[in-house]
Amino acid sequence: MVIFTAEEPTRFGIGCLGSRMMANVLTPSQALTLRDKEGRGLEEWRTQAGFTGSLESVTLSAGRFHQFVELHIEQGPLLEQEQIDLGLVTHIAAPASLRVVIEGEGGHAGAKLMPGRRDALAAAAELILALESAAKSTGAIDTVATVGVCEVFPGAVNSIPSRVRLETDIRDTDSARRDRVLGALHAACADTSARRGVIITTEQVNADPPAACDSAILAAMETAATESGLTYKRMVSRAYHDSLFMARIAPVAMLFIPCRGGVSHRPDEYSSPQWIAGGVQVLARTLAMLAI
Amino acid sequence: MVIFTAEEPTRFGIGCLGSRMMANVLTPSQALTLRDKEGRGLEEWRTQAGFTGSLESVTLSAGRFHQFVELHIEQGPLLEQEQIDLGLVTHIAAPASLRVVIEGEGGHAGAKLMPGRRDALAAAAELILALESAAKSTGAIDTVATVGVCEVFPGAVNSIPSRVRLETDIRDTDSARRDRVLGALHAACADTSARRGVIITTEQVNADPPAACDSAILAAMETAATESGLTYKRMVSRAYHDSLFMARIAPVAMLFIPCRGGVSHRPDEYSSPQWIAGGVQVLARTLAMLAI
Repeated sequence: MVIFTAEEPTRFGIGCLGSRMMANVLTPSQALTLRDKEGRGLEEWRTQAGFTGSLESVTLSAGRFHQFVELHIEQGPLLEQEQIDLGLVTHIAAPASLRVVIEGEGGHAGAKLMPGRRDALAAAAELILALESAAKSTGAIDTVATVGVCEVFPGAVNSIPSRVRLETDIRDTDSARRDRVLGALHAACADTSARRGVIITTEQVNADPPAACDSAILAAMETAATESGLTYKRMVSRAYHDSLFMARIAPVAMLFIPCRGGVSHRPDEYSSPQWIAGGVQVLARTLAMLAI
Repeated sequence: MVIFTAEEPTRFGIGCLGSRMMANVLTPSQALTLRDKEGRGLEEWRTQAGFTGSLESVTLSAGRFHQFVELHIEQGPLLEQEQIDLGLVTHIAAPASLRVVIEGEGGHAGAKLMPGRRDALAAAAELILALESAAKSTGAIDTVATVGVCEVFPGAVNSIPSRVRLETDIRDTDSARRDRVLGALHAACADTSARRGVIITTEQVNADPPAACDSAILAAMETAATESGLTYKRMVSRAYHDSLFMARIAPVAMLFIPCRGGVSHRPDEYSSPQWIAGGVQVLARTLAMLAI
């Protein structure tokens, strides 16, 4: 059993820090350059938390694990809606994250006339809508795009925004389609920059390839679910997980259980004891089968 | 001479706190209900700063001042560009400030599909662009509108924004024209709310009437400028000032001096010693004339 650290992209703005490093997708030297908002690094934080071993020792070689199985809540509403006990994950969607900084010109909100403005927030608003539109028009339900962070400087009611920082998240089960949305965002940046006279810089925080789950593990999970008297369906995971990185060094598969209302990453995230018990039982049967 | 406190709208999100209260535009009981971001009030802060008198004693009656003259930097680029020493302010633009809160629905940026989303930031982006467009299309150069604050909750790269708070600032020398822009923003709120299924609430923070400056003071300032050998032009103030509130209880006028690049409310705000000296000289001559 593995319990991964830092799966959520919190302090350093990058998700699955533990599994990324175990799979060497993030090398120890790259990890040392990560900084949080206060400019403090991984080395400082892990030392403070009492972890003193070498970062190099975290990396695992391919073949170190025979197989890898992860149990998770769906983080979507489908299983609950369709009253199905389990989801057998066939593909894990590929996330890309782009940080966008828009630099315009500040000034007094009353004194600076509209024609001469280079308002960074108005430029950001165009990018937010352009990204949403690009994600909605791929023709595939699996494309999602989000601007979750919008920081405005100086951030006062009577000051024209001089700088805005956006953090965007684009995902798809098909990486070519995802990259076309990323391309549309880059094109919108170029267009807005030219029209509004603002400087837009982008930084690709990550752009991981999607993962396909292993057919032998999926077959074992099907047998285990049937033996447990539970219903299941094959589905894709639109959220990404540590399994996405474990897939680089081992065959993987994931098992989903329902969660209430598809709610996740919120205080009211909930999965019932019965749903959890079903997931644990099928996970245990699957592991027992794979261990033979 | 009066030095006003809290002219900039910082802690309580409302400008010219001192002159507002002196003119009784903001009553003592209204002032006591103001809260800052941490929920702390005026009473707490002024006591901590060592001010213990009664708030009622701040209010001045009309006629308390015979006349009121204010010297200020232009906060715009015109005087410097036209190489004119002084601006004689004939009107002070009328500001209105609307706080807009958009409540959508959060969720995981990967798992929640685009068609079911009620993204508060995408809705906010529409309002930002609608307000800019309304201000640009009044046909008058004097109309300006700004969204200076955009706070996003929860504000994480992998979370769909559930709530956004905007602070808007709309100004004009003509209050009817300004109120039409305010109306356009309200209409955009209704439209976006209906189309996107988000809840939008607005709070009018202020909507002060514009002020016309006193012709007798303006005439005295012209004479003073001529006697000082300085050039001048009549102009409007698009920024608002303590004079806007003093105009409720006394005849007012304002004198502008140039500032570099029209820059204001920024660390590089600058007016030369020569410009400042010219302004002080004309202010002194004006006051001497008015005192006779």
